[in-house]
Amino acid sequence: MGKKRNLYLNTIPVEEAQEKYLTAVSQILSVKTERIAVTESLGRITAEAIFARYSSPLFNASAMDGIAVKAEDTAEASETRPVILTEDQYVVVDTGDPIHPPQDAVIMAEDIVETDEGVRITASAAAWQHVRPIGEDIVAGEMILPGNHRIRAIDVGVLLSAGILEIEVVQRPQVAIFPTGTEIIEPEEQPEDGSIIESNSRMFENMVTEAGGVGHRFPPIIDDYQQIRDQVSAAVDQFDMVIVNAGSSAGTEDYTVHVLRELGEVLVHGVAIKPGKPVILAIVRGKPVIGLPGYPVSAYIGFENFALPLLQMMGRQQEQLAETVEASISKRLVSSLKHREYVRVKVGKVDDRFVAAPLARGAGAAMSLVRADGFCVIPQNSEGVEAGESVQIELYRSRSEIENTVVVIGSHDLILDVVADLMPNQYKGMFVSSTHVGSMGGLMALRRGEAHLAPVHLLDEATGEYNVSYIRKMFHEPMALIKGVHRIQGIMVKKGNPLGIQGIEDLAADDVRYVNRQRGAGTRVLLDYQLQQKGIDPDHIKGYEREMATHMAVAAAVASDSADAGMGVLSAAKAMNLDFIEVGPEEYDFAIPQRFLELPHIKAFLEILQSAEFQDKLRELGGYEGAEAGRVILL
Amino acid sequence: MGKKRNLYLNTIPVEEAQEKYLTAVSQILSVKTERIAVTESLGRITAEAIFARYSSPLFNASAMDGIAVKAEDTAEASETRPVILTEDQYVVVDTGDPIHPPQDAVIMAEDIVETDEGVRITASAAAWQHVRPIGEDIVAGEMILPGNHRIRAIDVGVLLSAGILEIEVVQRPQVAIFPTGTEIIEPEEQPEDGSIIESNSRMFENMVTEAGGVGHRFPPIIDDYQQIRDQVSAAVDQFDMVIVNAGSSAGTEDYTVHVLRELGEVLVHGVAIKPGKPVILAIVRGKPVIGLPGYPVSAYIGFENFALPLLQMMGRQQEQLAETVEASISKRLVSSLKHREYVRVKVGKVDDRFVAAPLARGAGAAMSLVRADGFCVIPQNSEGVEAGESVQIELYRSRSEIENTVVVIGSHDLILDVVADLMPNQYKGMFVSSTHVGSMGGLMALRRGEAHLAPVHLLDEATGEYNVSYIRKMFHEPMALIKGVHRIQGIMVKKGNPLGIQGIEDLAADDVRYVNRQRGAGTRVLLDYQLQQKGIDPDHIKGYEREMATHMAVAAAVASDSADAGMGVLSAAKAMNLDFIEVGPEEYDFAIPQRFLELPHIKAFLEILQSAEFQDKLRELGGYEGAEAGRVILL
Repeated sequence: MGKKRNLYLNTIPVEEAQEKYLTAVSQILSVKTERIAVTESLGRITAEAIFARYSSPLFNASAMDGIAVKAEDTAEASETRPVILTEDQYVVVDTGDPIHPPQDAVIMAEDIVETDEGVRITASAAAWQHVRPIGEDIVAGEMILPGNHRIRAIDVGVLLSAGILEIEVVQRPQVAIFPTGTEIIEPEEQPEDGSIIESNSRMFENMVTEAGGVGHRFPPIIDDYQQIRDQVSAAVDQFDMVIVNAGSSAGTEDYTVHVLRELGEVLVHGVAIKPGKPVILAIVRGKPVIGLPGYPVSAYIGFENFALPLLQMMGRQQEQLAETVEASISKRLVSSLKHREYVRVKVGKVDDRFVAAPLARGAGAAMSLVRADGFCVIPQNSEGVEAGESVQIELYRSRSEIENTVVVIGSHDLILDVVADLMPNQYKGMFVSSTHVGSMGGLMALRRGEAHLAPVHLLDEATGEYNVSYIRKMFHEPMALIKGVHRIQGIMVKKGNPLGIQGIEDLAADDVRYVNRQRGAGTRVLLDYQLQQKGIDPDHIKGYEREMATHMAVAAAVASDSADAGMGVLSAAKAMNLDFIEVGPEEYDFAIPQRFLELPHIKAFLEILQSAEFQDKLRELGGYEGAEAGRVILL
Repeated sequence: MGKKRNLYLNTIPVEEAQEKYLTAVSQILSVKTERIAVTESLGRITAEAIFARYSSPLFNASAMDGIAVKAEDTAEASETRPVILTEDQYVVVDTGDPIHPPQDAVIMAEDIVETDEGVRITASAAAWQHVRPIGEDIVAGEMILPGNHRIRAIDVGVLLSAGILEIEVVQRPQVAIFPTGTEIIEPEEQPEDGSIIESNSRMFENMVTEAGGVGHRFPPIIDDYQQIRDQVSAAVDQFDMVIVNAGSSAGTEDYTVHVLRELGEVLVHGVAIKPGKPVILAIVRGKPVIGLPGYPVSAYIGFENFALPLLQMMGRQQEQLAETVEASISKRLVSSLKHREYVRVKVGKVDDRFVAAPLARGAGAAMSLVRADGFCVIPQNSEGVEAGESVQIELYRSRSEIENTVVVIGSHDLILDVVADLMPNQYKGMFVSSTHVGSMGGLMALRRGEAHLAPVHLLDEATGEYNVSYIRKMFHEPMALIKGVHRIQGIMVKKGNPLGIQGIEDLAADDVRYVNRQRGAGTRVLLDYQLQQKGIDPDHIKGYEREMATHMAVAAAVASDSADAGMGVLSAAKAMNLDFIEVGPEEYDFAIPQRFLELPHIKAFLEILQSAEFQDKLRELGGYEGAEAGRVILL
């Protein structure tokens, strides 16, 4: 076979790898500092304690609008025996004006009466009344900020008031980032077969920024031992840290570990973490060099666990602990004793209970990171969790955002994206989160109390009616149906319909490769109904067992020629530039327990469905009819 | 008197002012957007939903290292009847390589055996096994991000993977900031009598940055109607928002409100908020113009309440809700029914209970904002809270930082600053917070469970012994004394000692203006003991009733010539360049309930006291002796 593979990696537990590497790096690390202007210091970390140069106020100052007097001169004043102060005995002052000897007190403007002879007062003034003494706020020599403090806007103001113009701060760690791989292309290049658009390095660059460092992203290096070695070697002399992306595994063209063994010491190769196992932690000439895997989720988790703590140590940044909540997990998660697993989850709050729904677990599922509200971490010594079990979730989003989110679980349609987009725009602080498990899956989730509403399009084969009979059958509590849209279902085929497919009947032809939807999906129910009506045996349909989770995934399979036909909605066919053979309209609605109808975010959801903006979007997408959208039918 | 004052402000409640102004501005506001490179988009807000241009993966891709085969060719393979695939029947693939027709499945490298005739397999491959279908992660046309979404590092990666190079984002609001006032000077100028260093504008500039806008700070304008009017008028045409600082009150030189009335409409002048009442909310030629008061705390609170929500609306930023905790307030807070008051507090966690200690309440107390861990908000309809009452605190710092903070309440000494600085440096994530209420105040707080330890220097007049007898007397539970330092107390006088003060006896002289410490302070106890010993009547000491809260405040009073003498420690005299007449050494220790001794952050505190770094700092400060520091004596 000609290709050479690396030996399998020895994996060690996450904490052990972190501890080993951080300890080794901390022993060679010297924190670098620099002097910068206070006006440019927002977000920087103080290298040392900072002491005031001036007091604030700089002088004894009036705390009121009024007159400054010598308290002794007023000692005898009373209601019955007022005292008149002559012009040489007082000074008119505004708040903040300096008070000079012999004056040592201020009388408020409200408490004096101007007369021809002078100012009349009817009460004595105590020495130092209404005077802000010098240094009341800040005393010269006092410590204003400790070391290792992150500068905020208020600190900038106070430092300047105290006469500090420049401060010593910790330097931002400079990180070189090398994407590698012969198959990768730059985002602006035209992709060819087998091309992978290089994006991890840009993600790292921004993760470095978020961690207070400065990322320097280099152009991709092809899989060539010499080139990788030369560039990494040069970068080590110039930067504080180096990240090499991909080539960290044990594949045939994974050179990174060999390069790092030649240049320095590899402390760890392979960590018991999923996704993210093929991590390389090395030190080259006193600088940390980290090899991270190529799959985006592995890359992200590898960075978070190994590069981030290092950056925080170098930049003396506080670790930002994620907020955690206890949630009920909506699906069984089987994991291996061999690794710690990071499962991305959507989190919602339904009936005072947090519910976490697992997203795609693959290392390549970058969108799962975008969609995720948090991580469920399954420890290395656990075989997983059962559905309904209570788990700790590390949140990405704030708890208050999650509490104001409508949780939608069920059948997928592009209109859910439209509603999710309109919601925070029109109702500040309110959101829609949707997970796609098909119509039946949605109703089950609703029954388990894991969602507020379930989008469904389920045809009752007996009556020809949509949705209502399913909801009546499955729930004991008072339910409602929120009307959604009528949408056109059909068969998606390649542009020009090369196999001449005209309808359901043609799907059983020998040369047609079909791609199906999963069991419980409304589209699958519709197909099965149609097959039954026409007396077609599903076994005769090639690819009937190949299941996809969304309309768009079916469309993508057809567009990429891994299938010839699949059922779905017009908007999906349009999005992928496919031809579309209409099968007929269906009703896509929302099942909801009546007790949720009065929640503020559910009300907002209903109003969005009824809005002109939503109707405009339907017209844009095509294949929809939404005259009834947002109408509530109590069942 | 010649000076003219504005009419008193009409104040309206905070919510009413916010509502009125935000509504008015939202009616004239058009959100501006711009097109930027995805690589530069971190932290920006999407102006619209973003849809994928490409699918990811871009092709059907191998999910394993192994061989790509046509599933049909393997149908007959089993353990007993292996199948040999010849070179034309398979392609060697690494993870990520494309799979082309007729191949439609991948067999893992571990499951094949190479033979001379070809590759032997002992199990059939299902169609599409170990193949990542095109679009598995992202399907072209799918919505990747909704509008109003704040771009994170992961989003940058996914957008590039999906072929998106540029996105439409909301423009950062451009804010002009005008400091005004004849008395203000730039931080780099040499202050003269009556000068105020201008720092609010720099604080605003950075608050604007933190809120996602861009601040443009202009040089100070003197109190001149024309100049203010001309500059504000020009800025309104060029910027999205204008802030005029100070001159917003009703003083003799407060022109801002008159300028804004001439240029546009003043919607609000004066809000029922403390600090921060003299706020001006105006609209000039379709742009919001805000006048904020000059005292730093008023300026900060005014910005947070009125400028920040506006910036968030313009930039479509999510409101960041502060975390709140329930805490027991350590001191009675009297407030007025006339306003909502923001009281800055230190927050600590003692015995599973959060405790909030109010800081200086003055509008000029900028350091109270720096030191604060949060705000206690007293509503407009409340007269305040009683000591020990439960209050809601809006936190500035994270809850976990607060939970790992040693809460110190008691007598002040500069060594507390030293320990607070060393702590997070040497013990990651641990902090020291100190509040200064004098020795007796500290012991009282300790007894109420509001602190972990109380620094004390209390001389027992009967025995001449320090601290121990006080602690024994006041506590029923098992207590300990942590030894601190011996420090020199003395009389601070101006450089050169112009009045020739030699000791305590001289403080009663007619021409000596003394400045005292508050009751309960150890230094006050020491003075009273010395006076008694020497038979001096306190009534004969001029200024005996003038009380300051810290050594440094006393030193500042002497340095500024508002007093001639005051008692304090050598380090304070040195910091303010004063002469120092030794009275004698005293013992400054820490009282602590024994139950706290095993807490990790208390242990760290003890180790700091015993460290070489701490001893070095003592030598630097001068006037200390710390051989016993950190020794624990169980009482």
